[in-house]
Amino acid sequence: MTKTSFAKMNCAVAQTLERVGEWWTMLILRNAFCGMSRFDDFRDHLGIASNILTLRLKKLTAAGILKKQRSANDARSFEYSLTSKGIELYPILIAMTDWGERWASNPKGPRIIMLDKANKQAIARVAVYSSSGNVLQPKDIIARPGSGAGDDIRTLLQKDWRRTATDKPAKGRRHANR
Amino acid sequence: MTKTSFAKMNCAVAQTLERVGEWWTMLILRNAFCGMSRFDDFRDHLGIASNILTLRLKKLTAAGILKKQRSANDARSFEYSLTSKGIELYPILIAMTDWGERWASNPKGPRIIMLDKANKQAIARVAVYSSSGNVLQPKDIIARPGSGAGDDIRTLLQKDWRRTATDKPAKGRRHANR
Repeated sequence: MTKTSFAKMNCAVAQTLERVGEWWTMLILRNAFCGMSRFDDFRDHLGIASNILTLRLKKLTAAGILKKQRSANDARSFEYSLTSKGIELYPILIAMTDWGERWASNPKGPRIIMLDKANKQAIARVAVYSSSGNVLQPKDIIARPGSGAGDDIRTLLQKDWRRTATDKPAKGRRHANR
Repeated sequence: MTKTSFAKMNCAVAQTLERVGEWWTMLILRNAFCGMSRFDDFRDHLGIASNILTLRLKKLTAAGILKKQRSANDARSFEYSLTSKGIELYPILIAMTDWGERWASNPKGPRIIMLDKANKQAIARVAVYSSSGNVLQPKDIIARPGSGAGDDIRTLLQKDWRRTATDKPAKGRRHANR
């Protein structure tokens, strides 16, 4: 099965997915955030096939999210570490952790606890804030196309999809079970 | 190619990926956040194959992230909409938008602008905050296993991966290019 590329989609979410949305990638990055750096450690801890891990690490390195350097202590081996571009993915990773702990929880309790190093207090759940610091829900946010938007994003943001759903005349072929 | 399931991994990130990490899923959800609800609209706007879209919508519905209801205006057709569980994915989606606008930007400018409905000011970039409202970087955060952690997470969080990389004796087979 050939996987569709999102590379040509003019959308920030699609572009992010194109770089980190492949199966395994966010778990490789999770481990990198925990300091893991060696190919064999990723393979052994994740139980990922070597050929897939090789592909993922190559793509992450080519995208500038990981950098590959010779190990200081063993010139025959390499270490992978997060670049600044990679480190900035952490709000996504922590938001994923929050959602998983909340909606796919372990009955024994949280799997991971994240603390502010300065005072050992739990960090806040990731949320969306206004410029003045209020928590915003999706209904509190207006999304508008910016100067870099293409037709796809403009259509997505400006069409009234709910009205369309009722106003659009039925096509010849209807899918009764969709 | 059979895709490995993350369902048995006792990790919040893996559990989130198991539900929303498949190719196309976050773009389907992006469109649902913009009010899109009909199968044909998702298919036409995304350019996704019908069989893949069917699979993704079924999985999202089974996971309780989308709900499927008969259209109020056309009993032969259905509409998909986000549940509370689905709506709570929005910090992940907005964090992905932020990263994509920053690291995979369009030279013409931002593709999407998100404003606080109350005062039309731009919303803040998604970040990780301490309980007292300070922005935290990964280096400011300590991650510890909680009561629901299994061996995988404990190993990940407690092992000193960097020291391991230098202390571990070389195995018989080394991969010079990894």
